[in-house]
Amino acid sequence: MPLEKTQRTELTELGEFGLIDHLTKDIVLKNKSSVKGVGDDAAVIDNGQKLTLVSTDLLVEGVHFDLSYTPLKHLGYKAVSVNISDIVAMNGTARQVLVGLSVSNRFSVEAIEELYDGIKQACKVHNVDLAGGDTTSSVSGLFISITVIGDVEREDVVYRYTSRENDLVCVTGDLGGAYMGLLLLEREKAMFKDDPSMQPDLEGHDYILSRQLKPEPRTDIIRNLHEIRVKPTAMIDISDGLGSEVLHLCKGSGLGCMIYEDKIPIDLTTVNAAADFNISPVTTALNGGEDYELLFTIGQQDFEKIRVIPGISVIGHMTAPGEGAFLVTGDDQLVEIRAQGWNALKRKD
Amino acid sequence: MPLEKTQRTELTELGEFGLIDHLTKDIVLKNKSSVKGVGDDAAVIDNGQKLTLVSTDLLVEGVHFDLSYTPLKHLGYKAVSVNISDIVAMNGTARQVLVGLSVSNRFSVEAIEELYDGIKQACKVHNVDLAGGDTTSSVSGLFISITVIGDVEREDVVYRYTSRENDLVCVTGDLGGAYMGLLLLEREKAMFKDDPSMQPDLEGHDYILSRQLKPEPRTDIIRNLHEIRVKPTAMIDISDGLGSEVLHLCKGSGLGCMIYEDKIPIDLTTVNAAADFNISPVTTALNGGEDYELLFTIGQQDFEKIRVIPGISVIGHMTAPGEGAFLVTGDDQLVEIRAQGWNALKRKD
Repeated sequence: MPLEKTQRTELTELGEFGLIDHLTKDIVLKNKSSVKGVGDDAAVIDNGQKLTLVSTDLLVEGVHFDLSYTPLKHLGYKAVSVNISDIVAMNGTARQVLVGLSVSNRFSVEAIEELYDGIKQACKVHNVDLAGGDTTSSVSGLFISITVIGDVEREDVVYRYTSRENDLVCVTGDLGGAYMGLLLLEREKAMFKDDPSMQPDLEGHDYILSRQLKPEPRTDIIRNLHEIRVKPTAMIDISDGLGSEVLHLCKGSGLGCMIYEDKIPIDLTTVNAAADFNISPVTTALNGGEDYELLFTIGQQDFEKIRVIPGISVIGHMTAPGEGAFLVTGDDQLVEIRAQGWNALKRKD
Repeated sequence: MPLEKTQRTELTELGEFGLIDHLTKDIVLKNKSSVKGVGDDAAVIDNGQKLTLVSTDLLVEGVHFDLSYTPLKHLGYKAVSVNISDIVAMNGTARQVLVGLSVSNRFSVEAIEELYDGIKQACKVHNVDLAGGDTTSSVSGLFISITVIGDVEREDVVYRYTSRENDLVCVTGDLGGAYMGLLLLEREKAMFKDDPSMQPDLEGHDYILSRQLKPEPRTDIIRNLHEIRVKPTAMIDISDGLGSEVLHLCKGSGLGCMIYEDKIPIDLTTVNAAADFNISPVTTALNGGEDYELLFTIGQQDFEKIRVIPGISVIGHMTAPGEGAFLVTGDDQLVEIRAQGWNALKRKD
């Protein structure tokens, strides 16, 4: 059996980011068209005029989604949306998507049609072409692999490792809602399990549910920034929670940062739901994940310019190398920001 | 539960190709960079100078591979190889690969390293950069999604739907070996299950085992054809068996074809193994799959030219629309070619 080895290190010892680092640390790009490989939201390829951006994601039943409360149509929509978000985070435009499906015979053709309806709907809304893929059976469960291809003008591409000291740290929209939506859905599922006659009580929670079930990539922000000629100095999308993404920016740029707790945008419905669950709203924003908002830095000279765009909050600034990443709390305490975001490999523990 | 619907059509009623057709029949490409979408070996994207080719594949444990006899290193190598083959089948050159992994905690870090070693080895041999990916946990088993990106000069791209009447049908290498390798491995596995003290008897079967475990994309043939300035009129790689691929060419081009049984190249070791298993060698070539050789058509005027390239066999010719796809047997019987190739969705029945 190939799995028996003298040494056995558990995957959970490394975690998702650790494993990726470990496996890819010795990779050297050789093709001259390979501009940027592992380590950003998308691979960057130079095929002549514009740069080509490619990103791929695997969505696994029981890890990334739970079909007992996720309608297949929403799942298809979300799978495409969150991949477009990776292209947006490079300041690019998504153009094509390839869909790989692995399905067990538990699923009917009609169920897969629902999933595809959602995929096609997201493609339509975002002007993306469904341009290929692969469909195969699985022994159990549903696996979705999405590859999205986009492009960006050579001078417009934005990486995640190019922030400069004193740059302002900005986020779009509001954070933590998607995670509260998830907690709500999981609570209702647990209650339904205890008492199947119970009707789900999701009223008044439309906003956080839509944040979880139907996230939208912030293509509008990219367009707005382009119109006012502000190019972020670095950018990443918030899939794993603000804390984790802030650390990616810091690590990538070799800088520290200072984030102000009371500047982090959190919707009132998220605050209320967090209170319901006895969680601090800021924790939700920092560690929740799946908001698919953009986190980016700009030069201080652009501060006045971005104020015309609704939905951008300045939440802090980058500091000198070695200064660390800190959250400044409402009562002026400094708390170190640590990665506690979505760690798909550890999540099952 | 989203899975409960009034109508339920089983996936097996449609099969893999039927399901893909069903799900993608209404897709219209809208982006001007989308040159070719669903329905060829790779999606074709126009981003300025060269055309960009992108192909994606899902490999599922228990469906596409069995780890009881597939070393993880070979699996990684093969996963990349077969995807490069899709780019080669468009007459292109593979440049980058993105790897999505979904692994259960049954696997150790060392096991995933083995897999990655194979992936990196294939990248090295074929000058392809490992440029990104996604790693995540699975509830059970191993899922690999590979996306390969390549390019081709605008005037060199070869589709699978552009054969012309009277074109010659060619294949590279020899066929059926990969399938005989698979049967051999499965027989040894079954015998080992009955008697665990048994030593596997794989001696003398190196060739068919390597065909199954370590297929190579025919980048050499593409290069050779380019050197002698022969551009195939249509091309596809043989992943599902010659029969299935011949039908793709016929359907794509709206033509019939005549394939001569005694022209189909089959290695002597494949013939011997087939005899061992009481299977006709031609059936193995037609229905076995996973040879990753190229099937292509050329104009009759190129017949003399291609004879300088070793490893190309002319096996038949394309006929008029509506004439059907036929195999001419050794005793001059006409047998209609039907798709009995690898059908991943039906394979579990």
